[in-house]
Amino acid sequence: MLPDSYDAGLHFIGRLRTPWSARGQCPKNGLQSDAVCTVEVDPLYAPGLQNVSGCTHLILLYWMDRAERGLVRQRPRHAAGSRGTFSLRSPARPNPIALSVVELVGLTGASLQVRGLDCLDGTPLLDIKPYYATTDSRPEARVDRAGTGER
Amino acid sequence: MLPDSYDAGLHFIGRLRTPWSARGQCPKNGLQSDAVCTVEVDPLYAPGLQNVSGCTHLILLYWMDRAERGLVRQRPRHAAGSRGTFSLRSPARPNPIALSVVELVGLTGASLQVRGLDCLDGTPLLDIKPYYATTDSRPEARVDRAGTGER
Repeated sequence: MLPDSYDAGLHFIGRLRTPWSARGQCPKNGLQSDAVCTVEVDPLYAPGLQNVSGCTHLILLYWMDRAERGLVRQRPRHAAGSRGTFSLRSPARPNPIALSVVELVGLTGASLQVRGLDCLDGTPLLDIKPYYATTDSRPEARVDRAGTGER
Repeated sequence: MLPDSYDAGLHFIGRLRTPWSARGQCPKNGLQSDAVCTVEVDPLYAPGLQNVSGCTHLILLYWMDRAERGLVRQRPRHAAGSRGTFSLRSPARPNPIALSVVELVGLTGASLQVRGLDCLDGTPLLDIKPYYATTDSRPEARVDRAGTGER
């Protein structure tokens, strides 16, 4: 059901090294594991890491290269019925870009040590961004607001 | 300096409608404006919005289609020297995917009304994700940690 052609292209800029080589091994989310994982940035992009060490937390964007892309509705494991893809963090989505907020533990050369990943070993990296508490932190956010219709 | 070919492709799934048609008009970040903007989701992907209305906040990923992609270091307007691209939220980056946390104000058909955008009118939309306070909110995060070397 997806269009035949793409509208834009991505460069993989590195790889994520994690302890998990099969999907069933991955934690449900980044908070469910204390594992320190490694972000390997390709040499071409390594100069972009300058000043990153000043950040306590980072946003990583990465590519779920094994995910199905054509599902606009899907049934999550924990739910009774199907739900809209954009109400879920499932890797299966039209553009399978995953996002994790990670804690920066260390930086050595072109490798970052981070805590908070939940993905497969070898997952392609797309971007690294500084996490700003002012614009990115919303402790009051809820995903189960009642009385809003289609739930 | 970027590779000649792409590693993966993106589908634009909609457009962001904002009051800003030139870069100089855009707020510095999404908190600097109270403007309610519109997320127009293409009909093909509209069924994916089911259940989204239960979320108070969303993460939007969108494509900075006018950004330069080859800069791994750049000089931000507020800084004296150049900085690594991955320490900045500048649109100029190898994969110009921007991220905003927005407040969901309303949902009508395939259009969302949101507060917290800072981008140009017509910007292509890539993804909509529910914002989870448990994994996405880090009020303690800092970007100016001292004593960590390269600042």
